[in-house]
This record gives sequence, C-alpha cells and structure tokens, in this order.
Amino acid sequence: MTEAALATHRAFYDAVETGDVDLMASLWVDDPETSCVHPGAVPLRGTQAVLRSWTVLMANVGYIQFFLTEREVTALPPNDDDPSVVVITCTENILSGGEATGAETFSGAKAVCTSILVRDGAGWKFWSRHASPVAEIGNLDSEG
Amino acid sequence: MTEAALATHRAFYDAVETGDVDLMASLWVDDPETSCVHPGAVPLRGTQAVLRSWTVLMANVGYIQFFLTEREVTALPPNDDDPSVVVITCTENILSGGEATGAETFSGAKAVCTSILVRDGAGWKFWSRHASPVAEIGNLDSEG
Repeated sequence: MTEAALATHRAFYDAVETGDVDLMASLWVDDPETSCVHPGAVPLRGTQAVLRSWTVLMANVGYIQFFLTEREVTALPPNDDDPSVVVITCTENILSGGEATGAETFSGAKAVCTSILVRDGAGWKFWSRHASPVAEIGNLDSEG
Repeated sequence: MTEAALATHRAFYDAVETGDVDLMASLWVDDPETSCVHPGAVPLRGTQAVLRSWTVLMANVGYIQFFLTEREVTALPPNDDDPSVVVITCTENILSGGEATGAETFSGAKAVCTSILVRDGAGWKFWSRHASPVAEIGNLDSEG
C-alpha cells in the first residue's frame, strides 16, 4: 500500500533529476485544486500552474540530485485498512549546478518537504507538495 | 463538512493568539506520527513534540496576531461525498511583538502554511502542519 505511494514519491525525484516533464505530469492529479509550494514561494494552485513551474525549473537546472533523509510515511485516515491519502515528509539534501534561475535551484542546500498523495486506481498521485528551506540555526529540534 | 474543518483551523490561530495551551492540545490528533514544520525548521514528529514546541512558542511571545489571506480548502479524496481528510492552505500575515525566541516569532512577517486535518467524530483535528517563510523576491507566482 504505502510501497506504491513511495514509488510515486521516488518517481517525482527521478523526474526532476532527469528533466522528464512527461513523467512529472503523470505523477500529479489533474485538478484545479492541487497545490505546490516551492521553498520561499507562495502556493501555486492547480496542476497546470504546478507543472509549468516544474517545467521552467527543470529547463533551467543543469544538474540536480536529491539525497532524501528522514523519510516518514503515514497513511490516512489513521488506523484505516483502506487509506485514501498518504502523507510523506522528508529532508531533501540537494546538490545542484548549472544555470540557477528556478525557485528550487541552489547548490548544496537543504529543504524539508511534506507531500500529500491520493489514490489513483492501483497507484498514487501527488495532490500537494510543500517544500521549505531549513535554516542552519534556530531549529526547535535537531537530528542529533 | 469543510465548515467544521475551518472551525478547527480558526481555533488553531485563536489558541496561538491567546496562548491557550489546552485549546491547542485539543486540536491535534494524539499520535506519534503527526508532524509540524515551523518556518525554517526541520519537522517535529509526534503530538507530544509538536505541542511542546507550541507551548514554548506561546510562552515566549508577548503579542501575536495572524491575518489569514488566500485561504483555500480542499477535501480528500477528490470528489468524494464522505471525505476523510481536509487540506487547508493559506498565507499567514503575522504581526508580533514581545520576547522573540520561538521559531515562528517575528515582527510583520509572512508565511505560507499547508495544514492537513483528519476527521475526529463530528469534528476535525490537525494531523500535520507545514509553515514556511515567504521570500520577498523570487516567487514563481505573484498575488497581483
């Protein structure tokens, strides 16, 4: 169950790393109410706007690679045998280079991300993604 | 349906503004898998850690008020008559003063927030909250 959702989550990063616009488009629910928050940015609403932002970002990144840590997966509703929503949080350790113009384009940066996936037939698709930069100081919690 | 979720969402800000720790505790699902990302911070996991962070923040803020704009509510699964999850995104225009030591304590700041609420009997409770600072430049979208 959550394994299928994790496959979608992994495919998302594959799409960004390889600049695969078609793969990225296949991973999102096509709906005017989906949303995406890039680090430091205001929310984008609707799959058309979300995919446009990723297309621009991927066109402007020469090289980008994500190393995911602290990945946590929860299925909702809690304690339901037939969950309809999966929430995945993770830390994105990002290595990038090339022409940096996109909102998520920076070298050796760290972001945290909350992704919301919904069931789509046998698989899962993105409904929402919220990524934010991690300040080096002032965290309420440390990774120890 | 979504009105009840919005009542919980409003009560969350009431709790922060009035420093009502008990109200805040009543608004979250008590589960080790809930999560909360304060602006610039790494995720806190589990209701105990989440509530501790809010208690510390509220104890250290002299005055804080939230003016919410661009609030958008979606129920999941999409097009389901009996949704089990509600996602609320909004922009928090924050006015604060006093002893500023908490992660969400700053004067005249702006953040964007994605909240995930799940059904709890007749009402709704917080499962996840992800807030992030908004950079004044570099947004992929503008509010016009």
